[in-house]
Amino acid sequence: MSYVFDFSHKYRQAPMELKDLLGGKGANLAEMTSVLKLPVPPGFTITTDACRDYMKSGWPKGLDAQVKAARSRLEKAMDKKVGDAKNPLLVSVRSGAKFSMPGMMDTVLNLGLNDESVEGLAVQTNDERFAYDSYRRFIAMYGRIVLECPGEPFDERFEEAKVAAGTTSDAHVPIEILKKLVADYKVLVKQHTGKDFPQDPTAQLSGAIEAVFRSWSGPRAFAYRDRERIPHDLGTAVNVQAMVFGNRDNNSGTGVAFTRDPSTGKNIAYGDFLVNAQGEDVVAGIRNTEPLSALKRKFPVVHVELTKIFDRLEHHYRDMCDTEFTIEQGKLWMLQTRVGKRTGRAALRMAVEMTTERAIKLTHAEAVSRITEEHLSQVLHPQFKGSGHSILTKGLGASPGAAVGRVYFTADDAAAAAERGERVILVRSETSPEDVHGMLAAEGILTARGGLVSHAAVVARGWGKPAVVGAEAVRIAGRHFSVGDVTVGEGDYLSLDGTAGIVVVGEAELVSGKPPKEFEVILGWADVIRKGNLNVRANADNGPDAKNARSMGAEGIGLCRTEHMFLGEDRLPVVRRMILASNHLEETAALEELRKVQRDDFLEILEAMDGLPVTIRLLDPPLHEFLPSTHELGIKEATVGLSVEEGELLAAARLWEEANPMLGTRGVRLGVIKPGLYAMQVRALMEAAKIRVAKGGHPIVEVMIPLTVSREELALARSWAEEAIAEVGVESGKGKGKKGSLEVLIGTMIETPRAALVADEIAQEADFFSFGTNDLTQMTFGFSRDDIEGRIMAPYIEQGLLKRNPFEVVDADGVGALVRMGVKLGRETKPGLKTGVCGEHGGDPESISTFYSAGLDYVSCSPFRVPVARLAAAQAVLEHGPRTAKKAPAKKAVAKKAPAKKAPAKKAARRS
Amino acid sequence: MSYVFDFSHKYRQAPMELKDLLGGKGANLAEMTSVLKLPVPPGFTITTDACRDYMKSGWPKGLDAQVKAARSRLEKAMDKKVGDAKNPLLVSVRSGAKFSMPGMMDTVLNLGLNDESVEGLAVQTNDERFAYDSYRRFIAMYGRIVLECPGEPFDERFEEAKVAAGTTSDAHVPIEILKKLVADYKVLVKQHTGKDFPQDPTAQLSGAIEAVFRSWSGPRAFAYRDRERIPHDLGTAVNVQAMVFGNRDNNSGTGVAFTRDPSTGKNIAYGDFLVNAQGEDVVAGIRNTEPLSALKRKFPVVHVELTKIFDRLEHHYRDMCDTEFTIEQGKLWMLQTRVGKRTGRAALRMAVEMTTERAIKLTHAEAVSRITEEHLSQVLHPQFKGSGHSILTKGLGASPGAAVGRVYFTADDAAAAAERGERVILVRSETSPEDVHGMLAAEGILTARGGLVSHAAVVARGWGKPAVVGAEAVRIAGRHFSVGDVTVGEGDYLSLDGTAGIVVVGEAELVSGKPPKEFEVILGWADVIRKGNLNVRANADNGPDAKNARSMGAEGIGLCRTEHMFLGEDRLPVVRRMILASNHLEETAALEELRKVQRDDFLEILEAMDGLPVTIRLLDPPLHEFLPSTHELGIKEATVGLSVEEGELLAAARLWEEANPMLGTRGVRLGVIKPGLYAMQVRALMEAAKIRVAKGGHPIVEVMIPLTVSREELALARSWAEEAIAEVGVESGKGKGKKGSLEVLIGTMIETPRAALVADEIAQEADFFSFGTNDLTQMTFGFSRDDIEGRIMAPYIEQGLLKRNPFEVVDADGVGALVRMGVKLGRETKPGLKTGVCGEHGGDPESISTFYSAGLDYVSCSPFRVPVARLAAAQAVLEHGPRTAKKAPAKKAVAKKAPAKKAPAKKAARRS
Repeated sequence: MSYVFDFSHKYRQAPMELKDLLGGKGANLAEMTSVLKLPVPPGFTITTDACRDYMKSGWPKGLDAQVKAARSRLEKAMDKKVGDAKNPLLVSVRSGAKFSMPGMMDTVLNLGLNDESVEGLAVQTNDERFAYDSYRRFIAMYGRIVLECPGEPFDERFEEAKVAAGTTSDAHVPIEILKKLVADYKVLVKQHTGKDFPQDPTAQLSGAIEAVFRSWSGPRAFAYRDRERIPHDLGTAVNVQAMVFGNRDNNSGTGVAFTRDPSTGKNIAYGDFLVNAQGEDVVAGIRNTEPLSALKRKFPVVHVELTKIFDRLEHHYRDMCDTEFTIEQGKLWMLQTRVGKRTGRAALRMAVEMTTERAIKLTHAEAVSRITEEHLSQVLHPQFKGSGHSILTKGLGASPGAAVGRVYFTADDAAAAAERGERVILVRSETSPEDVHGMLAAEGILTARGGLVSHAAVVARGWGKPAVVGAEAVRIAGRHFSVGDVTVGEGDYLSLDGTAGIVVVGEAELVSGKPPKEFEVILGWADVIRKGNLNVRANADNGPDAKNARSMGAEGIGLCRTEHMFLGEDRLPVVRRMILASNHLEETAALEELRKVQRDDFLEILEAMDGLPVTIRLLDPPLHEFLPSTHELGIKEATVGLSVEEGELLAAARLWEEANPMLGTRGVRLGVIKPGLYAMQVRALMEAAKIRVAKGGHPIVEVMIPLTVSREELALARSWAEEAIAEVGVESGKGKGKKGSLEVLIGTMIETPRAALVADEIAQEADFFSFGTNDLTQMTFGFSRDDIEGRIMAPYIEQGLLKRNPFEVVDADGVGALVRMGVKLGRETKPGLKTGVCGEHGGDPESISTFYSAGLDYVSCSPFRVPVARLAAAQAVLEHGPRTAKKAPAKKAVAKKAPAKKAPAKKAARRS
Repeated sequence: MSYVFDFSHKYRQAPMELKDLLGGKGANLAEMTSVLKLPVPPGFTITTDACRDYMKSGWPKGLDAQVKAARSRLEKAMDKKVGDAKNPLLVSVRSGAKFSMPGMMDTVLNLGLNDESVEGLAVQTNDERFAYDSYRRFIAMYGRIVLECPGEPFDERFEEAKVAAGTTSDAHVPIEILKKLVADYKVLVKQHTGKDFPQDPTAQLSGAIEAVFRSWSGPRAFAYRDRERIPHDLGTAVNVQAMVFGNRDNNSGTGVAFTRDPSTGKNIAYGDFLVNAQGEDVVAGIRNTEPLSALKRKFPVVHVELTKIFDRLEHHYRDMCDTEFTIEQGKLWMLQTRVGKRTGRAALRMAVEMTTERAIKLTHAEAVSRITEEHLSQVLHPQFKGSGHSILTKGLGASPGAAVGRVYFTADDAAAAAERGERVILVRSETSPEDVHGMLAAEGILTARGGLVSHAAVVARGWGKPAVVGAEAVRIAGRHFSVGDVTVGEGDYLSLDGTAGIVVVGEAELVSGKPPKEFEVILGWADVIRKGNLNVRANADNGPDAKNARSMGAEGIGLCRTEHMFLGEDRLPVVRRMILASNHLEETAALEELRKVQRDDFLEILEAMDGLPVTIRLLDPPLHEFLPSTHELGIKEATVGLSVEEGELLAAARLWEEANPMLGTRGVRLGVIKPGLYAMQVRALMEAAKIRVAKGGHPIVEVMIPLTVSREELALARSWAEEAIAEVGVESGKGKGKKGSLEVLIGTMIETPRAALVADEIAQEADFFSFGTNDLTQMTFGFSRDDIEGRIMAPYIEQGLLKRNPFEVVDADGVGALVRMGVKLGRETKPGLKTGVCGEHGGDPESISTFYSAGLDYVSCSPFRVPVARLAAAQAVLEHGPRTAKKAPAKKAVAKKAPAKKAPAKKAARRS
């Protein structure tokens, strides 16, 4: 197996296509060397194969020999020898994974120096100070990274030395002191390792290579990959490269530069450099760097050459590049390049501008592909300005964006403060429907308990309000909370980052969330690409949310959760009356009351989404969610006693209490045991539709039955819906698809594994399927999200038992298989069956790709995710190609014109 | 479409093969008429197609014309006309579904009588009294069944008439009074229906046919089909047949007879008959019947003819037949035959005896096929003698068999009473591990709460002890309980039928549960048939159960639930110490203590099952199951306060409390967050195995990981197990499969849908799969068994939303699809992968058939179900055929000989 490739290898394909093997840095170095013929110090890459083999079963057999051979070739090219006492070659050893992981892994510079070759270097460079300074740096670096010595003692010795020398500048430490430092450093190494500092360059090299391999599995790197969703089994490549010295003299220097401004996207090269310094000095920020304009002044020739190189790089890579360069005694060397990271704002500007630049000429598809979820999120939501905030604690980032405000602990206090004009952060153990007015008044929400589907998380996401939930270190006591020793009282300022789940004490500075003008341009291009392939709808439960969703570009509502309408302060008592009803009459009276308020809710939504499909999910959650906790009332009963009403509520709550409510009496099961409930909801909906039609509107209604497991169940629920539709008797004014007409479909969620497995049968009764991937994930894994996310998910991800949190990115193998099966079986029965997804995954780009490739017609997500979903949908179409066959229209639309009589209408519909 | 077939139709295939179409009765009548040429009154059958079409969309088009034509043919054959004033033909109209539903559906006799034809009948039979008695009977029957008049007024009028006539015998009511009764009956009909009694014979006939169609959907029929698991969509056929009159005179009579004794199986015809009576009189039990011996005396010629017919029937049907016959003025008519129902005892005796009878010569396969689950259950468990017990209340039949004893309400009282020599019924709201000694002492167990997987149900089934659970009407208060007005106190006698879930006050008479000698013969034949195709194991958690299972014929243990070992009174405190441990040391100490007791448990089990495979499932349930209820302790905390220990327990219980424990931290997830736990269990197991090997035993151990969702998870758990195995270092004495050797496999349960969907990946780490169809059913349907069975299952079955309770009979379409997928994918990775099932479905015959056809190697069930499973396994093999290809032996057996060192052993095993 070939473990080693020279930069100047005769590659059969572009090195950039070998990133899996060479890593990003190695591929780019090879690309610059072999293809672009830029001035790159020679060297070679040890492949990711070697790293993977190392992780699996230790040091790979044959690697030593290949490294030795490559080193010989390098020595020959440079006409120097590593470790040579006269003409030594120094090399750097750097990691380079497929995906950039800046600062996460290890680098060793100046490798090859030892007690002999340092003298050679002194002669060779005619600069003894330089040689010993390099040796000193090398021992410290190698000691820390390869031999795992603590770093502080090295720094302390050096600081002491500078004091002793009476200087503050590294460059002015005299040679004698440097020599003493070298001796001291070697003692430090021996103290820590029990062995002498290795003098053999071959041993030095293997040690450094192994250290890089090891650093792949280090905790920092691990955490970084988790966050960035980089698989842990890729491994890193290692690049060994001849050293050039920016710290050689004042005719030397080193810098990093972007070919455009990575912050704004402006088409001007942007960077920093330092005279007489090594690369690490620039990155570490120890000395104050100078801008590229200073380079033009101090190294005019190099500047011209660099500018030309930047043009060639942009032309070649067709994108902004991030580079490292070094000037050694006036000669320019390119040490690294890659396509550079950029802010969301810059990404949008560059993508749009590059479509019209002659040298680059991106297509719209390419421009769309270059924008990530994070780019959009950055320009949509306020963000903490810069990083480096002092983090008080972390929780789950439940709703993106940053917020700053004064802390209040009750909804009433929060609302009152907001009325006084204060910015408010509401801090609660967890929230409930009674807190909603306080949540609405707050800039951001922090809870100590609850997961990503807790009440706080769901409500906050619905409103696009930043929220951090489940911050378990937060202990609330009355009007203050504490985290460890820190106490935050009412009225104190607090800042939240709901993207990263970060809590910061005080007022963090924010950058605005107003997107630049290129935002709409890119999304417009994305819409053109996805048109006819994958629609994007929003989940919205009321008129304002629906309006907002439409303004975000939603093409309908994929999920309207009618239970949220049941939780309003004015409705909850009526819902409870319905549950407590001791006879049919009381139940009917309560249902009638609910029907009226539901109708008005639906009316607002249908108006906001006029002409676009609106999917109304009939009541889904178990009834005990509308009842008080048995636990609290139980304790009250045992202590101070209960009122008559509380007693009734407790009895009802006990009756409806379930061991596993997630798998209990919810969804259509509720409909079966309370048949009037669903009929009431459909009647309310059709009455709203009727009003809209009378006003010349064009309501498109999709009635959705939740939690179906069998065809028979759906047939029964469908019959209630059809009866209610017939009873209301909506007259469609004109033809289908026009103003004053009505369209109604009746379909089901596919959210139990069984529904997906028998989707061919269920499709007989369904006009559409909407995959509820939240529940489907819970049942497919047997993961109760409430219980699992807190306790199990972290150790599972850390130990690699799961690659991802399947509630964030849909599990393509398991849950995805059920989705594919459901679509396939459903369309075997009904070739034109409309299919979509309405779980939270509908807003996740990777999940959207999985869904599109499974054949879904639309995704639905929270309104604030709609732009991300539009972009991701276009990217999915680009990835998998557009739909080949347009589906035959085979929708079973009922009640386009409501029939006059009830019974025949029902039969006709059932037979059609 | 042909809706009507004459009995004497020229059938292209044996009418018995057309039972779907003709129903059982119609097919048998046609068989007797067309094939056997027995004396059957002519007639015709209206097919089940007609009934199904009627149910779907009302009276079938064309049916009237076909009935008219068939009626003409019948009239021609009989040379009489229906409704004729001179020579009338009377017909019977009887239901006849594919499966017998005795007494569940409607029959109309004497059809064709009206005010004119009654006179014709009088002339024709020269018996006016007979004619008017027939007309009276007809009006009452038609009125009740077709016109849905209440029945009591007819009976009252008749009783009054008998009083007026001064007689108690139906036969002695004089003609004038019969005529007056006819007039009175017609008035009753008019009062109820508002119309005159129909005189038109065509209308009478359609009315009767429709009434039979309707009765298919009647509540009694519906309930019967539910109980007998007959699909509701089959429909019934209708048989229209010329009447013959057993009530014509004293030279007439009617009877029912079996060709053998259906109660004992003895090869002697057995039956009842009545002189001068219609068939309904025999069935209704209004008059005292006479045995067949009386027939021999009173009708010697008929008796000889009947005996010959019985022989021909048995020869033809190759089974015991159940017949109805009528003698009309000395002539014998066969009205019906079918293969007769029989008791378990009789079924076994007949099946065995018929294999050696020359005229029948059943094969062993046929004999095995004739025994049902119910037959075995009858001979295995005590039963209530007869039926007709006065039922106090019903619950879920959780563990089969009947029990009688005195009621006690606490485990201690029950145990004390049993020590005094009393038979005891333990009555509890629900049971918990603390009640186990009382349960053990009791003859039977009754609980007011809980489902078929409640503690009471699971424990009782394990011990084969009758139990009724979830009898919700039972209100326990101190030392008595009440159901409605009835109160049962401590010490009162109570009887339970744990098969049907029936509770009876007082001492019901029982019949013993000792199986007859044919039991072992049949099971022996079954074993020969299933050998090499489908093995039967038992679920057993301790030595005695394992021993019992082996004596029942179990070929190993398919599921040993180690959590049951954790619940013992002496262990629970240790388990709690493990959970409460504040540091690693305390945890390890508790685990060590548990290891010792577990080792002893395992030792007993391995000894009992020496030489047979024993599957040990590592700890599965969530930890809070071992902690007290937060609710109770919470109330105690709020009222009287808690001890320090209670406070700790409450804190732990709150920490481990879950919203949906079924989908929470259980199974291998528990292993991941408490890694020492599984290692401890495997060490205990291997230590037990080591002792067995040292004693020359032959332990075959299968370590089973529960609730796996990913390959990585199983790989991790496998690594713990392999480490523990290596640590214990069992030396296998001689070669594999012999005394003194050890075999160990490591496998997993497939009980989440995801595990089945990615079974190809999981199989990489598994030596076997065991499908946990309880959990798989819960997750596939999203049904929490605890919550669903009480509230949802009944309405779902009643409304036809589910055909069966999927926890009793495995859902072949949904869950079955996952099992088939799991087996197929698993064997794609490992062609010889051993697969089995260990859910409760493993003891259900229909489920066993589903599992065998999915390719499973074994089923496992509670010890007392083993005989049923052995039989059902053989029947499944007969149904689906034997396995064609023998699997290649591809087992990955680890630790056959434990390697000396730990690390290499692990690596070697992982790489193999």
